[in-house]
Amino acid sequence: MKVKDTTQILQNIRRVMISGESSSAPLEAIIIPSSDAHQSEYLAPCDLRRNFVSGFTGSAGTAVITQEKAALWTDGRYFLQAERELDNSWMLMRIGVKETPSIEDWLNSTLPPKSNVGVNPLLYANRSWNAMKKKLQVKGHSLLATKSDVVDAIWKDKPVKPCNALILLDDETTGMSMGEKIASLRDKMLQNSTKWLILTALDDIAWVLNMRGSDVEFNPVFFAYLIIGESSVEVFINKNLVTEKVSTHLNSQVKINVHDYDSALEFIQQHCATADVWLTSGSSYAIVSSINENHRVMAANSPVALMKAIKNMREIKGMKAANVRDAVALCQYLHWLETEVVKGGVTECSAAKKSLHFRQQQDKFVSLSFGTISSSGSTGSIIHYTPSEDADRPVTASEIYLCDSGAQYLDGTTDTTRTVHFGNPSEYEKECFTRVLKGHIALALIVFPAGTKGYMLDTLARMHLWKAGLDYMHGTGHGVGTFLNVHEGPVGIYIGNSSRVVQVASETELAPGMIITDEPGYYENGKFGIRIENALLCTNAQTAYNFAGKKFFKFEPIAYVPIQKKMIKEELLSGDEIQWLNDYHARCLEIVGRELKSQGHTETLKWLEQQTTPV
Amino acid sequence: MKVKDTTQILQNIRRVMISGESSSAPLEAIIIPSSDAHQSEYLAPCDLRRNFVSGFTGSAGTAVITQEKAALWTDGRYFLQAERELDNSWMLMRIGVKETPSIEDWLNSTLPPKSNVGVNPLLYANRSWNAMKKKLQVKGHSLLATKSDVVDAIWKDKPVKPCNALILLDDETTGMSMGEKIASLRDKMLQNSTKWLILTALDDIAWVLNMRGSDVEFNPVFFAYLIIGESSVEVFINKNLVTEKVSTHLNSQVKINVHDYDSALEFIQQHCATADVWLTSGSSYAIVSSINENHRVMAANSPVALMKAIKNMREIKGMKAANVRDAVALCQYLHWLETEVVKGGVTECSAAKKSLHFRQQQDKFVSLSFGTISSSGSTGSIIHYTPSEDADRPVTASEIYLCDSGAQYLDGTTDTTRTVHFGNPSEYEKECFTRVLKGHIALALIVFPAGTKGYMLDTLARMHLWKAGLDYMHGTGHGVGTFLNVHEGPVGIYIGNSSRVVQVASETELAPGMIITDEPGYYENGKFGIRIENALLCTNAQTAYNFAGKKFFKFEPIAYVPIQKKMIKEELLSGDEIQWLNDYHARCLEIVGRELKSQGHTETLKWLEQQTTPV
Repeated sequence: MKVKDTTQILQNIRRVMISGESSSAPLEAIIIPSSDAHQSEYLAPCDLRRNFVSGFTGSAGTAVITQEKAALWTDGRYFLQAERELDNSWMLMRIGVKETPSIEDWLNSTLPPKSNVGVNPLLYANRSWNAMKKKLQVKGHSLLATKSDVVDAIWKDKPVKPCNALILLDDETTGMSMGEKIASLRDKMLQNSTKWLILTALDDIAWVLNMRGSDVEFNPVFFAYLIIGESSVEVFINKNLVTEKVSTHLNSQVKINVHDYDSALEFIQQHCATADVWLTSGSSYAIVSSINENHRVMAANSPVALMKAIKNMREIKGMKAANVRDAVALCQYLHWLETEVVKGGVTECSAAKKSLHFRQQQDKFVSLSFGTISSSGSTGSIIHYTPSEDADRPVTASEIYLCDSGAQYLDGTTDTTRTVHFGNPSEYEKECFTRVLKGHIALALIVFPAGTKGYMLDTLARMHLWKAGLDYMHGTGHGVGTFLNVHEGPVGIYIGNSSRVVQVASETELAPGMIITDEPGYYENGKFGIRIENALLCTNAQTAYNFAGKKFFKFEPIAYVPIQKKMIKEELLSGDEIQWLNDYHARCLEIVGRELKSQGHTETLKWLEQQTTPV
Repeated sequence: MKVKDTTQILQNIRRVMISGESSSAPLEAIIIPSSDAHQSEYLAPCDLRRNFVSGFTGSAGTAVITQEKAALWTDGRYFLQAERELDNSWMLMRIGVKETPSIEDWLNSTLPPKSNVGVNPLLYANRSWNAMKKKLQVKGHSLLATKSDVVDAIWKDKPVKPCNALILLDDETTGMSMGEKIASLRDKMLQNSTKWLILTALDDIAWVLNMRGSDVEFNPVFFAYLIIGESSVEVFINKNLVTEKVSTHLNSQVKINVHDYDSALEFIQQHCATADVWLTSGSSYAIVSSINENHRVMAANSPVALMKAIKNMREIKGMKAANVRDAVALCQYLHWLETEVVKGGVTECSAAKKSLHFRQQQDKFVSLSFGTISSSGSTGSIIHYTPSEDADRPVTASEIYLCDSGAQYLDGTTDTTRTVHFGNPSEYEKECFTRVLKGHIALALIVFPAGTKGYMLDTLARMHLWKAGLDYMHGTGHGVGTFLNVHEGPVGIYIGNSSRVVQVASETELAPGMIITDEPGYYENGKFGIRIENALLCTNAQTAYNFAGKKFFKFEPIAYVPIQKKMIKEELLSGDEIQWLNDYHARCLEIVGRELKSQGHTETLKWLEQQTTPV
């Protein structure tokens, strides 16, 4: 494990800050968020500015550099990873730990009065900008929009912006044509009294246009802005991507004007300035501030976000089919591990590659949906761990193995976690696993009324851990896209704000058609990690009674991979929980067994039969 | 049941509104909150302005009167009561029902542009004022502080402001002297960099001064303001109350300057204007706006609120002792009902009187802590029902009887609900009762980490009802004062905002020493109501493990009254739930049985023995 030496980088950055060459005045501090111009969660290599300056490679974190200090804020999922990756120039600021100051409090206590703090206005969401600006004002500091990016100024071997070919989806797959989507959005614009709708989130744009890309690893999106007007639709995209086929697709139902990606801000300033514009507070400060305050109609979520969170029948069909094929690959993989681990030679990396291999055999496979978390023993406690060749660990029969993985298929996105042991787990490990499982089942079994928000269900997944003095420092569930981002807002199941999507997530009411994950866990630093994750589809529930005519909803798991019985302390399960487990395993055998058979994986089918016998 | 005819009252009010005699300009609308100058929940008769104008007697509700319309907003607890009490001049606005507009939305859609909306600035919390003002500005309306109260101008037989003798509490009872409390508050003022602390909540003031009053029915408080400075303490109170004894008490540890109640605003303007002042956003707009904006240090809760919510050892001892005596009275009462109801002649009112009679026999009894909810059959579905002589119902052996009641004792405050049947409950009634009980037990049994806020536990009390398509439209729990208000902020267990204390309540972290209620229910309009309520003390939990060194907490019931076994469908209870019930009943018998014996209530002791045999 080599730690990146950031001494020279920090020196160069500090020189640019003082020189004022990227800003209207010299900067006493700069904030470098983990973000791109679309506030994406996963970033293209050219947007990994925070990684470049700090050496920390986790997906969430913000760097702040002053003339004297450099500090990196990240959350509980990444504490261990950041400790390993940061060099001595950096202070780690642990978000969620009581003693940790917020970025603004730290700046206010560190900087001389009336300092200038710089941020690239394209990389900072408008809501974050306003909150930061207000808090820095307390000590008279100014938040300055830089004219050009300070990191880019010193990043000599910066990768070029990707521009990969587009995939066009037919209406059979999407269940709703681009024309219908745009018509529905125009109805909403009318109701909201706005003339323009500016979409900046890449997955929103991909969903509306029924197109997919591969500009960002794991997320099948492409760089673009989309502006829907009353009578025109404008897309801003690298024109090299607009082949004849793409052009035909874009003009098949609605005429869409194609502009160069870099001209979006200019277009907004020229055309959207004099009428009411619908924007999200997650759009960049650069976009939002280019519109007169009187004409901004701000919303926490774009109208696309909620439409896309509620999957239609075709999308649900696709998500289920993708999960069945993914389960075939995962069953093959778990079966393979059981055979191979005891022989020796399997490592976290080699195992991850094998799981990719099995997925690649499946129909409609496109890519992984995130970096496979293949962790053995102590690395399992690093919540968002990705193994690397230079810090690889063996997978053995004496430690718990945790695998959190998923893939993009042309018809859906998957995200499943299983935790297994290839030898004899200790009684304590089994107790922890069983308490995680009890929480997973509690959420999977809940029936709840319309109006329930995600955060109201979070405690269900934790209560059995709490009883024994245990807990986990991450959210319980997130939305999943349909052949789109594996972390999809606005719905989710969490209390706090441990990751980006969280802040507005939990305020969204759960509704039939939404697909969210159910993934409680337990982690013991330096020892092991446990997580059990299925994607759940929200559906209507039939209840014995019906209070005040309320609608009631429930969840249906759509990931069907056996849960290792060896890890379960049966005496800790209630009758209802055992019933759930046996029913779930029967469904696994029925659904995945059928597919294994049709694909001719007889040995894995036998393995699945053993795995799914009732307890 | 007679409905109050409000025609003449509304005519008179509208005349005053147009005349502009109470305001700087004629008013197109007035808002009449259910409030006094201290934003109390329970009001003295002289402050029942909203009741007077509308005829609606529920404890929560806001009236709005325009020249054309009159509308009353109230929440789910009071829908049925308001329907019965309002005359045809009034529209009922059901808070929490999707179609109901907020007051500001309704005013914005009803009033001509640029209207004046009047409110008495003493009766409106600063936070409500600011929110309302901002929302009305959207349509150009102004929120005007009236110079005098519009209702008072036409209320000819308005009762006089009460001025009842004070009770002085010794340090043995309170566990903390007035001097210690003021010193601790001055420490907090120093940390908060404020020179003055203005206390306006009557229970905050009573707690700091170790005095109690009876100016407001059920709440042992007295009208006063308390201002703590760096070097002086100022109390504003009706000087007739300050007898020699009171004067000695006030000057026993710290010199406290006594001023006339009505001079508080003037004092603040003259003395607190030039230094930083600590205020709560729940204080009246009149108070807050009298301080220069630069000098206001606003907090959601006063520092007293949190100190008083965490009971000290003496207070806990008092609360437990008061609950034991209260349980004696409740056991006598339930035993008496069992004998008498079947004979006939018992009514909701006569029963409530009998329960008061039993409580009055108990040592240290002062008064009830709220109007006894004694409801039989259909009235049980009116969540905050109080029986009245002119709409009394018989209590019979063919309907469910719900009794929610509590008392003020010199050493503590109680609030307990039991639901019983004196004949044969239906299977459906038993199922509903059992699901309410399962929710009650789930909350009583939860173990949770430090940092948990009340709203995170609310779902536990509902999940078993949800499973059957049932729910209840009120919060699950509220804080209870120590010989103070029965609804005490800032802690509570709820999601929404169905009552006043709620809005800031759930954001407070639960902590050992807090006492909250656990009171899920189920209500079927026109048929029956079910609620099971105990006060719970938050304590430290011993857990098998201890994740990340976190502290874990649990609850201990401090109300010990048997839960009627006849109402329980045992087959719906889990092993853990049966265990809880049997343990709880064993504790009832042990603790209350001892007291019944020492008080010589042999027959009731026999009854208690029967009630508490294990299931």
